[in-house]
Amino acid sequence: MTNNMSKQVIVESGEWAGWRTWEPEPFEQIAGPFYAKGESDDVRCAFRATPRHLNGGGTVHGGCLMAFADFSLFAISGSIWSDHAGVTVNASCDFVGSATAGDLIEASGEIVRATRSLVFVRGMATVELKPILNFSGILKILLPR
Amino acid sequence: MTNNMSKQVIVESGEWAGWRTWEPEPFEQIAGPFYAKGESDDVRCAFRATPRHLNGGGTVHGGCLMAFADFSLFAISGSIWSDHAGVTVNASCDFVGSATAGDLIEASGEIVRATRSLVFVRGMATVELKPILNFSGILKILLPR
Amino acid sequence: MTNNMSKQVIVESGEWAGWRTWEPEPFEQIAGPFYAKGESDDVRCAFRATPRHLNGGGTVHGGCLMAFADFSLFAISGSIWSDHAGVTVNASCDFVGSATAGDLIEASGEIVRATRSLVFVRGMATVELKPILNFSGILKILLPR
Amino acid sequence: MTNNMSKQVIVESGEWAGWRTWEPEPFEQIAGPFYAKGESDDVRCAFRATPRHLNGGGTVHGGCLMAFADFSLFAISGSIWSDHAGVTVNASCDFVGSATAGDLIEASGEIVRATRSLVFVRGMATVELKPILNFSGILKILLPR
Repeated sequence: MTNNMSKQVIVESGEWAGWRTWEPEPFEQIAGPFYAKGESDDVRCAFRATPRHLNGGGTVHGGCLMAFADFSLFAISGSIWSDHAGVTVNASCDFVGSATAGDLIEASGEIVRATRSLVFVRGMATVELKPILNFSGILKILLPR
Repeated sequence: MTNNMSKQVIVESGEWAGWRTWEPEPFEQIAGPFYAKGESDDVRCAFRATPRHLNGGGTVHGGCLMAFADFSLFAISGSIWSDHAGVTVNASCDFVGSATAGDLIEASGEIVRATRSLVFVRGMATVELKPILNFSGILKILLPR
Repeated sequence: MTNNMSKQVIVESGEWAGWRTWEPEPFEQIAGPFYAKGESDDVRCAFRATPRHLNGGGTVHGGCLMAFADFSLFAISGSIWSDHAGVTVNASCDFVGSATAGDLIEASGEIVRATRSLVFVRGMATVELKPILNFSGILKILLPR
Repeated sequence: MTNNMSKQVIVESGEWAGWRTWEPEPFEQIAGPFYAKGESDDVRCAFRATPRHLNGGGTVHGGCLMAFADFSLFAISGSIWSDHAGVTVNASCDFVGSATAGDLIEASGEIVRATRSLVFVRGMATVELKPILNFSGILKILLPR
């Protein structure tokens, strides 16, 4: 179960200068790191695949893509989380393509619906605009933090 | 997309002596490592949560649990993969509880159905027998390897 | 979105004598009718497939099976609903086999976890013990009714 | 498991004149009937909710919406099915809103990816442009028919 108790920081230099990441997020730092940029309906998420993201067949591991999807569910619905914590209660993922080391993997999506207690998000991860992961998730809004 | 092109090895010493893991699996080694034991309907999967598996709230990251679920889908259906490769095409995960550093996270499950081209698996991850992740997946059988 | 505002009734005669159904449930009566029996971990759900349940290929329509799964999610978690209403927020279904007219289609399952606001259920529909639908769902608990 | 062995017919008169439906589809005729219009990326699906589509709470039954989603998965990917039969292997549904008698329920979506054996589709059902069901599905391509 993911939550979002960590703090947003802006990367200051390098390939990801200007992008947001969250700290401390020990697992996301090793499984990614994953980055986000933009606001509201224009949030984009991304990371660069490297050898450590791969499975034994030389493509990005499904677990890595699902971790990125989980990150993206929160980033896409970022406007909800300025004053509340949340946890993922469901994630559904269709693996429709593959990526390999060197690829820039991006994701975007939309809040399908937000009620007082649940946020429904869907998104798509792509490599050079070709879909690799279709994902939907349900996030539960916890008490104000 | 996960595949299973890597080779099974038996751990020789330490906490996981006698358990199986797969190599090379760069992502699973950092997201886990994850282990499996037993055959057919009695496959058990496990890993020990440590600080690097956590999110910013101090619980095991949802992406880590989904990576473990993806590993478990293949381990649970291990009898299929002795002479074929496979890829995950769908994974659906319900996050029903949490785990933290020090916890032993286990998973088991069953092949719901195997056709010539698809394998349907469901499983449950638990901590001390309490469910934390309910998961189902569909794996596609590729050509003989 | 399903809810459970209807009342449980016991069938008095015929094939389903002694089984529970719910009324008024206009859609379930035409899509089924669906029936349940037993308590707690021993709830069984069932219906008899007839020609009107079929698709153009002569097998029970996927939508009929999903309606039965939705019914079963509530029946399996029936102990929760004695004093609360609920709605389905997610249902995930794997179609792993087929059924045809004349078949007795059964389902059973378990409450994976119940929190104050959400109930996680998983189940399996079978024909003569062979799986045809693997399903999981998340139900939201509404105010006391 | 749905398949698509039935034949497309064009409605000749009434509210749905000019729309496509499929026959014989016994279950879809009672659970719907459901209709589709347009080609390729512009396929629209629709039906008009009436009292028989409702649950005991007076809203359209989740099973009815899932049957409509299953219909829509095939209609949205209609270009695939001109010379092949197919079956649904997975459907994942998030119930994000409700509809009632009199409402026009519409759905549209896209083929996320089509391989030689599998078609991945996602879609959204709406009432007056407000989302009520977010759905994704995987369809398996069978032999040429």
